Parts: sequence; C-alpha cells; structure tokens
Amino acid sequence: MGLSHRTMTFSNPVYIQSSGTAVGPKEGAGPLAGSFDYRYTDIYCDEKSWEMAERALMKQAIKQCLTKNHLSIDSVDLFVAGDLSNQTTASSFVARDLQLPYIGTYSACATSVETLIISGVWVSSGLADLVLAAASSHYGACEKQFRYPTEFAVQKPETAQTTVTGAGAVLLGKKRTEIQLTEATIGRVQDLGITDPMSLGAAMAPAAAEVTIGHLHKTNQQVSDFDLIVTGDLAISGSEIYRKLLREQGIYITGRYEDCGVMMYHSEQQVLAGGSGAGCSASVVYGHIYHRLLAGELKRVLVVATGALLSSMTVLQKQSIPAIAHAIVLERRS
Amino acid sequence: MGLSHRTMTFSNPVYIQSSGTAVGPKEGAGPLAGSFDYRYTDIYCDEKSWEMAERALMKQAIKQCLTKNHLSIDSVDLFVAGDLSNQTTASSFVARDLQLPYIGTYSACATSVETLIISGVWVSSGLADLVLAAASSHYGACEKQFRYPTEFAVQKPETAQTTVTGAGAVLLGKKRTEIQLTEATIGRVQDLGITDPMSLGAAMAPAAAEVTIGHLHKTNQQVSDFDLIVTGDLAISGSEIYRKLLREQGIYITGRYEDCGVMMYHSEQQVLAGGSGAGCSASVVYGHIYHRLLAGELKRVLVVATGALLSSMTVLQKQSIPAIAHAIVLERRS
Repeated sequence: MGLSHRTMTFSNPVYIQSSGTAVGPKEGAGPLAGSFDYRYTDIYCDEKSWEMAERALMKQAIKQCLTKNHLSIDSVDLFVAGDLSNQTTASSFVARDLQLPYIGTYSACATSVETLIISGVWVSSGLADLVLAAASSHYGACEKQFRYPTEFAVQKPETAQTTVTGAGAVLLGKKRTEIQLTEATIGRVQDLGITDPMSLGAAMAPAAAEVTIGHLHKTNQQVSDFDLIVTGDLAISGSEIYRKLLREQGIYITGRYEDCGVMMYHSEQQVLAGGSGAGCSASVVYGHIYHRLLAGELKRVLVVATGALLSSMTVLQKQSIPAIAHAIVLERRS
Repeated sequence: MGLSHRTMTFSNPVYIQSSGTAVGPKEGAGPLAGSFDYRYTDIYCDEKSWEMAERALMKQAIKQCLTKNHLSIDSVDLFVAGDLSNQTTASSFVARDLQLPYIGTYSACATSVETLIISGVWVSSGLADLVLAAASSHYGACEKQFRYPTEFAVQKPETAQTTVTGAGAVLLGKKRTEIQLTEATIGRVQDLGITDPMSLGAAMAPAAAEVTIGHLHKTNQQVSDFDLIVTGDLAISGSEIYRKLLREQGIYITGRYEDCGVMMYHSEQQVLAGGSGAGCSASVVYGHIYHRLLAGELKRVLVVATGALLSSMTVLQKQSIPAIAHAIVLERRS
C-alpha cells in the first residue's frame, strides 16, 4: 500500500465479491426501487420494534450478499459494521447472531465508507481472505432517538432530511472480480459552528469538500478522472453548499455529481431535503451504483460518505455539529 | 502479518512510542494513583458538564502521551478512538480539536484493545508512521446515560460496577522502542442470555474466556508463556466466572491473572464489584501495566479488554446483553 498517511492505494488488489441491500417501504417506492435486493412492505420488517427491524434489515442485506456468492457465513473471516443507534446495538446484535470476529465502527452516516476502508486494509494486507462490511439505519429508530416522537408531528424546515430505512452489505476479498477498491482517504472532522440539527447537510458539506479536495490533490487527479463523484447524504441543501465549496477551489463537478440522499426518493415523497442515515449511502452505493459499475455504465466512482457527529446530548448542550467524510474509489476493471 | 483470520501477528514490528493517562479524583485516590500521568481533583475536570469533562480527560491523556515524546500533534498520521457516550461524541469532539484523520470505533469497554489492533495494523502494513489510539469513560456521563440520575441514590447489588473516570492514549509507530505489540485476536460476540445490567461482569466473562482460549489455541501457547493475563473490567464477580470458564477447559491462571477493574480501587472505596468503562483498561494498561513492562518486571502480557454491548434501549426492551473481548500481546524486548 502506498501514499501513506491518510490517503492510500490498495497495492494488493481488493475486490467486491458481491453486495446485498434491503430497504423499507418508502425507499422501495422510490426511483431506485428496482436496484434493491429486498424491499420490506412494512417499516417494522416483521419485527416487534423499530430497533429489531433495523437488525432484520442488516441481516437481510447480508443474506442477500452471501447468497449471490453461494457462500455460507462460515467462509467469512471478519465482520466490520456500524450504525446510528446508541452504542451501535444494531450492528452488535447482528454480530452476535453471525458469530463472526467483529470490529465495531462509528462515524455516523460516513460509517459505510469507514467499514470499506478497514475491510479493504484487512484484505490488502493479507490479514483476511473475506471480510463482510455493513451499515444500516432505520427511520423510526432514528427519529425516536435523535428527534421527537413521530406522533408529535413536529413541523420541520426544508433543510431537514429523512432517515433512510435501509442497510447495505458488501463482501470484500482478493479473488479477482469486475469491481475493485483502489484508493481511499480518511476524513478529518470539520466544524464550522452550525448548531441546527435540522441542517445536517450544511454541517456535513465542509467535511465532504475537505476530503474530496484532499483526495484529488494527494492522488494528483482531476474531477474528469472520475465518471461520478457521489456523496452519501448531503441532500439538496447540503449538496449545493458542497458544490459551492468546491467551486471556490476551482473544482467543478457539474455533470459528474450525484448525492445518495437526493437519489433515494421522488420529490413528491415528502422527504424535505432528501434521505440521510448510515443506511443511505450503503444501500444506494451497494445497489444502484454497484450495478451501474457492473454494467460498465460507470468505470471509476469516488464515493464520499458524510457523517454528522452529533448526539441528542450535544444538541441539548448547544454544542456545534462536527462532521466527517471518508472517500473511497470503486473501479470497474477494463 | 501471519496467522490470518482473527488471530494475527504483526510481522512488521509495531512499537509503543509513549503513553499518557488522565483520571478523576476517585481513581487518583486508588492504589494505582502513582501510575497516572494526570489526576484531576474535580470530577468536572474544570469543565461545565460531565460530557465535556470526558473530552478534557482524553485530551489530557493525549497531551501527556505526546509531551513525553516531544512530539507535536502534526507528527501523527491517524487518530483511532472510541468511548461509551451515545454516538461516541467524546472521541469525535476530541478528533475535531486535534484535526487528525480519524477512525471512530466502538466495542464498549473493549474499545481500548480494538483501537490498538486497528492502529497496529495501520503501522505494520506501512499505511502510517505514527498512530494515536485513545479510549475514555466518565462516571457521571455514564451513570446519567445508562442508569439513573445519581441524585436518586439507587441501591445497587454487589455485582454492579463503578464506571472509571479516566482516559488512556498510546502512540504506536515503527521506531524501535522497548515495548512491542506482537499478537492480537479479534473477539466474537458472546451472549449467554444475561439480562441484568447490574451484572455486566457475568455478561462479559464468556467473551473474555472465548478470546483467551482462542488466542492461546491459535498461537499454540500456554498460560505460562505470559507473565500476566489482564482483563479489562470483569471486576470481582466477573473475574471469578472467567477463572471458572477457563478452568473448565483445563486452563489455570492463578498467580498470573489480574483485572483492571479490580486493581483500580481500594476495597474501602465503595465501588461494589470494581471499576468498568472504556477508560478503565486504557488508563490501567497504558499506566500501571506499561510501567511494569518498562521496568522489566513483566516481559509478556496478554491484555483482554472486555465490553458489554448493551444500550439503555436494549435494556428497556428486555434484550439480553451481548459482550465482546479483544486480545493483544504487549512484549518487552529482551
């Protein structure tokens, strides 16, 4: 591995062996519906609570991922996962059920790419043959934990986002496949002093811009070296700030940029600025984006997952909202 | 690196460059007082809230760690940290202040060793020259979050533990020093159905036993190959169960075993079964144990950090308590 410090290239190749996604009813009625492996028709996912539903989503995504590869769980060496629940219990309870060696991670909605980076390093350095990475979020569990009981029907501003009910899992290994992880940059926490938890896109955009600029600079690449730059969950308002911050540095992404949170829903689905949550980038990247890479429609994609590092307690204590973004490059072998 | 899958040896050597610890007043009045670099006399650590106090503890531990090495924060390539607060905000806010590339982790009180393993892999595989690993916990912040307002003065059973107010940080690098990380084993989540959050030692002991047995077996070693096996925070009741589980497998540790949670306090300090928290193993291992290694009193230590993967929500929903333990070997070069 080269380019030491926060930007890295995986010199021993790391390939995506397969991926799996599972989403809730709202996501399953959105424009990406056909790209998900499993769509629950009920937000409880046949479980008794939203928290248990989130575990069911993650397990379903993992099941879909392994089934496509005709692999049993025993073939996997390591499970790297994270989610938004307090003490990341969704991931930990899934790890208990899988009985795999487990590394728990947290970087809010940037967790998807954090798990990819750690898993990629494990495979590339020969520490594991097959690593399973997963991330999830659940609308009900998140609203309850971070905001207000949904029954309050609190009015939200246009900049507020809607937590995605969804999970994504991906199996990484050294066996040659069509899609490879090639480069990554670990983010630095950015905090421009935003305190409004209804404007997470604005809090996260500077972190996304910082890691994007850092990655392009360190690897000596241009926007035109990528077919697509895709952010995790900046949503409509955050995406505009991200574009602006890049533009100020002379970086223009128009025509090559999408945001998973924007892509997830139809505009008439009443999701305000768009989707968010650790399951947002995981389900969109491991579903829709991965399929476009497999189809050859995209060759090189820079995925920039974005996370707001707040808690209910930091909001109550009137702290500003730090944010982080991690970047990874997915490439189709030509 | 060899012994692929969950047990690993660091074939490119990884050394502890320095360590730093900071604790609260109760810990600073305990038997290990002299081993800590910084002892706050006030549990608020000169901050306005317990949550901010926890950040101060972690930053103080990091400051102590870097100062000993005459290093500035800019020399560090990566920060790997975790804690018990919801959404690990203690670590994230410290990461914001440090402005280092940041990997957020969570495995409850096993976080200290999880951060050591990830940091060790980064150094060993050449991805970073210097990695800073840290973990923390704070009595007040934890009681408020997981249990009851301390003002309730709820009576607790003898098996309950006392969260350590403390933090530990360690700087890993490839520069040869006297103390080396040599082996590690990543834990599997264990859950024997315990539902009582006042008996976390009992919930964690099976995870500690599983990873201890797994490590000894995979590396073909005996208890006598180590001068000490030290668990993170099983405390008195959990330690007994751990000994028993090992004994049932023909493994006898008497005379070579200690627990950080037991060591932390005097028996008259009213801590019930002993200390716990992500800051417990971090402050004891990076303080007391590290000093004994440096002094040559210990040559090889197997550190088994133990974490209970519950949240207030899983307890309210009457779920059992899964637990994980990760193991790492610290060795003094002869």
